[in-house]
Amino acid sequence: MSNITPVILSGGSGTRLWPLSRETYPKQFLALTGTQTMLQSTWHRVAAVAAHGPLVIANEAHRFVAAEQLQQAGAEPQAIILEPMGRNTAPAIAVAALEATRQGDDPLLLVLPSDHVVADEAAFHVAVRLASAAADAGKLVTFGIVPTGPETGYGYIKAAPGSGARPVERFVEKPDLDTATAYVASGQYLWNSGMFLFRASRYLEELARFNPAMLERSRSAWENARRDADFTRLDAEAFAAVPSDSIDYAVMEKTADAVVVALDAGWSDVGSWTALRDVTPRDGEGNAHHGDVIAIDCRNTYAYGERLVALIGLDDVIVVATDDAVLVGRADRMQEVKDVVARLKAEGRSEAAWHRKVYRPWGAYDSIDNGERFQVKRITVKPGGTLSLQMHHHRAEHWVVVSGTAEVTRGDEVLLLSENQSTYIPLGVTHRLRNPGKLPLELIEVQSGSYLGEDDIVRFEDTYGRS
Amino acid sequence: MSNITPVILSGGSGTRLWPLSRETYPKQFLALTGTQTMLQSTWHRVAAVAAHGPLVIANEAHRFVAAEQLQQAGAEPQAIILEPMGRNTAPAIAVAALEATRQGDDPLLLVLPSDHVVADEAAFHVAVRLASAAADAGKLVTFGIVPTGPETGYGYIKAAPGSGARPVERFVEKPDLDTATAYVASGQYLWNSGMFLFRASRYLEELARFNPAMLERSRSAWENARRDADFTRLDAEAFAAVPSDSIDYAVMEKTADAVVVALDAGWSDVGSWTALRDVTPRDGEGNAHHGDVIAIDCRNTYAYGERLVALIGLDDVIVVATDDAVLVGRADRMQEVKDVVARLKAEGRSEAAWHRKVYRPWGAYDSIDNGERFQVKRITVKPGGTLSLQMHHHRAEHWVVVSGTAEVTRGDEVLLLSENQSTYIPLGVTHRLRNPGKLPLELIEVQSGSYLGEDDIVRFEDTYGRS
Repeated sequence: MSNITPVILSGGSGTRLWPLSRETYPKQFLALTGTQTMLQSTWHRVAAVAAHGPLVIANEAHRFVAAEQLQQAGAEPQAIILEPMGRNTAPAIAVAALEATRQGDDPLLLVLPSDHVVADEAAFHVAVRLASAAADAGKLVTFGIVPTGPETGYGYIKAAPGSGARPVERFVEKPDLDTATAYVASGQYLWNSGMFLFRASRYLEELARFNPAMLERSRSAWENARRDADFTRLDAEAFAAVPSDSIDYAVMEKTADAVVVALDAGWSDVGSWTALRDVTPRDGEGNAHHGDVIAIDCRNTYAYGERLVALIGLDDVIVVATDDAVLVGRADRMQEVKDVVARLKAEGRSEAAWHRKVYRPWGAYDSIDNGERFQVKRITVKPGGTLSLQMHHHRAEHWVVVSGTAEVTRGDEVLLLSENQSTYIPLGVTHRLRNPGKLPLELIEVQSGSYLGEDDIVRFEDTYGRS
Repeated sequence: MSNITPVILSGGSGTRLWPLSRETYPKQFLALTGTQTMLQSTWHRVAAVAAHGPLVIANEAHRFVAAEQLQQAGAEPQAIILEPMGRNTAPAIAVAALEATRQGDDPLLLVLPSDHVVADEAAFHVAVRLASAAADAGKLVTFGIVPTGPETGYGYIKAAPGSGARPVERFVEKPDLDTATAYVASGQYLWNSGMFLFRASRYLEELARFNPAMLERSRSAWENARRDADFTRLDAEAFAAVPSDSIDYAVMEKTADAVVVALDAGWSDVGSWTALRDVTPRDGEGNAHHGDVIAIDCRNTYAYGERLVALIGLDDVIVVATDDAVLVGRADRMQEVKDVVARLKAEGRSEAAWHRKVYRPWGAYDSIDNGERFQVKRITVKPGGTLSLQMHHHRAEHWVVVSGTAEVTRGDEVLLLSENQSTYIPLGVTHRLRNPGKLPLELIEVQSGSYLGEDDIVRFEDTYGRS
């Protein structure tokens, strides 16, 4: 097959799967349908047709988790390009195309969202092969999903009659139910999936033609990017000036060279809990249950239990229980979870954006308890992980190592603590925590003080560029 | 009014309100409908008609919480009689009658379960006054609830025509729906509530007549009871030999002197989550929500959130979220929660009987986190509370005081720790924790070791008679 570079769009911060997916740790980083996260599955899906590691476009705030998951999946990305803010898909793909052509190459770009499910990978690969022939010939290919019903939540693509890569007759907005039903009955319409294949230079040419300002500003953000071993950080000021638009509006609906390849491969954008239920294997009563779930006489329920969940006599109900929130709703109403998240945001509640467990480049912490003048965290540090050299003005910290080995810098001392050893960091004392071992370090931190916010931190030095 | 002694039956260990009510901390100790627990509300309901503090019959396992709640409510019980095991209501009331007549008195006994709701206390007091005239004349009065519908979950009482205290024509078992409907339509039937009023000596006479063995064995358990300042502990061996039976079967259905007084006072036995919903004030859409609940377009839901609960588009659904379990069910199926509890028991799971937070005579502990070789607890010690002098074979303990003052005995030392101070109890070292202050003491305990079960404890001395 041709020289294909996957472009994985990981910029989403969806809240449609709240409370499992949150702004700071969204759906693409979750293992919702198996042991791989959706980002990892996306890589595995394209690895067989890819000539190179992927170009990944991610939100700045997600850089460490994205890098770690790609490394675990053996993806060896050519670059992880960080967006300081979202500017929709057209600029993101422009930056990827610039990066892909940087050394004089001109690969085919296979553009994929990082949070879709494709059950039948073989069918997907067949479609990619079909599409690559058209892309080699200069076409801009969109993948159109063969509809399984009159969905009103997707845009539709009307394809010219024929087979293979067919010219796009038109793109249509999300239709009402009657229109969608007519579309599906006609056999001429496909769902707009957000997956594309084209030569990098062709995308840049068409963008230059239809939206030169977008290309110019995207190029400026990319040319002024800061590059280090792990990340390509787009220039924030320049990228902020890029107009926000989707590839559909900015290029695909305007170009004369748009073609569509039909895909019938068990695709889902997993855009709601109900959609996730529908792509999850179910039992004879239609129930899909994950985690610690007991059900008595239920049908068509989806339940996700990070802790014990018991269900009685329910039909078509979704229940999601995390360690800090519970969501219960009728299956056909789950898109309204966005209203729940909006209300939480309006009330300034952290559950809108944050999980109880927060991931950091060195590991993670979980806030297991708190009171008026104290807070208890379980801190996990990866082998080799190092927290920043830091100091707090308003709190003291007690650390008890419960597994692994900790190297603790406390003022001028350096201590080595192992399981069942503890230390105390008085208020105002500079300190640092490191895991010098080969196994994860776990410790319990008890913070004591008058103010316990995460922002009471003075960072003197940081291994991960955060000081 | 006559000399009335309330007899409060607090022996229940109901699981019908799981996960809020559990075997070790059942419904009568919960504040389900207001700020008072059901036990406390029961006392307040009768205080106005009582000549004395109550006689309370409780399960041995609940003695500390029962005593504390009664004290908080200002009940000044004449005795808290502890049953080593349940023997149903007839023996419990026999023991109460023996206790009440111990000094030669012969009061009227107003027998009340500790876990019922009576909305209209004035109507209840009127019924008690009516009943006491009959009881003064030697009758055994049962309170019959004026039915609000054809309930199949209750026994019924057929009353003779008339008003006031009417002779009981017959007691009938839980009927089927058609029979119940006919009963209610006839206007002659009342629900059997489990509340009674009679002179103590009359109950003992009738029990001696119809069930002399039960009385004799109950007397033996009571005569051999161990008494201390707080509790009257029935003799376990003797009480084990008492036949188990209800007052209805053992006495009321046999005596010629049974009369019934109708009660129309917003009574509920709160026998299910749905029953609790029905006695809880609801909003315009029929929803009753407690705690941290957000609802979007719901009707007739009951939700109890110890942590964040979000509901979408539900009708007639019950949701209960505690810190370690979530229950979701259709309102008309909630009696099946017993099947959930049975399954948890069969799987040997602690959530069947225990809350995450466990109450002790000195305070409480909450297991906030645990891992393979560690466990973290938040320990609260009441002012003056003292844990037993103890030692563990398999674990060390780190204590960090987060509020209040701790007096720590560690081997031969005695330390005084205040907020933000910590100590370490090595494995095998005898230790004790006491709150010498006037405010609650809170500390975080990190246990580290190979075995962390509650049974790794050697008690040398205990203030509460547990060593």
